[in-house]
Amino acid sequence: MPTASGHTSAICAKKVIGTPVKDTTGHKLGEIEDVVLDKQSNNVMFSVVSFGGVLGMGEKYYPIPWSTLKYNEEEDAYIVNLTGEQLEAAPADSMDELTRDDGVAYRDRAHDYYRANPYW
Amino acid sequence: MPTASGHTSAICAKKVIGTPVKDTTGHKLGEIEDVVLDKQSNNVMFSVVSFGGVLGMGEKYYPIPWSTLKYNEEEDAYIVNLTGEQLEAAPADSMDELTRDDGVAYRDRAHDYYRANPYW
Repeated sequence: MPTASGHTSAICAKKVIGTPVKDTTGHKLGEIEDVVLDKQSNNVMFSVVSFGGVLGMGEKYYPIPWSTLKYNEEEDAYIVNLTGEQLEAAPADSMDELTRDDGVAYRDRAHDYYRANPYW
Repeated sequence: MPTASGHTSAICAKKVIGTPVKDTTGHKLGEIEDVVLDKQSNNVMFSVVSFGGVLGMGEKYYPIPWSTLKYNEEEDAYIVNLTGEQLEAAPADSMDELTRDDGVAYRDRAHDYYRANPYW
């Protein structure tokens, strides 16, 4: 089913990876670094966004629930309704830590921080 | 939760893409070309496997349910319990066709062909 904004729901991981992430004013915050998949439950656990290049926060990666990202066709970007300050306080870590013990800790923290409905 | 074979359940899409796909005798059949994600339901719709280089079937891509692929650590590959003949008869198409109309047709065909439990 297409979403309310008309774009399709099925999307290839290769297209997702590298897509810019912008705030609601169209300012680029970062981009999608990867997507963490759950082999057992068949779900997308969370997306991983890198903001390091923009906000100067080094090599940290931000787990963001897949449902939190809203794709905007005109911008060809995912839009998050967050300020830079809110992102600085968001859960972030190295990729190894994000997926440690099957990623459950950061899955939970990300869904809590962004107030996304748990899929599990 | 780790799977029965001990490997973890959380896996990054970038690691999945490019992983070899082998038959149960360890013969390489192809590799993971991409993973189709459902933006709305939060699920992995299916993996896309390219067998063209090996079986000489050109540029066709094979949708295979995520749950059908069993990762084998020793082989560093996904194992499918299928012969080359079975793969030749499997659903396959161009990437555009696989994801047309949100990929529902090939999602359904793939789950039916490989007798995978529907996640939806």
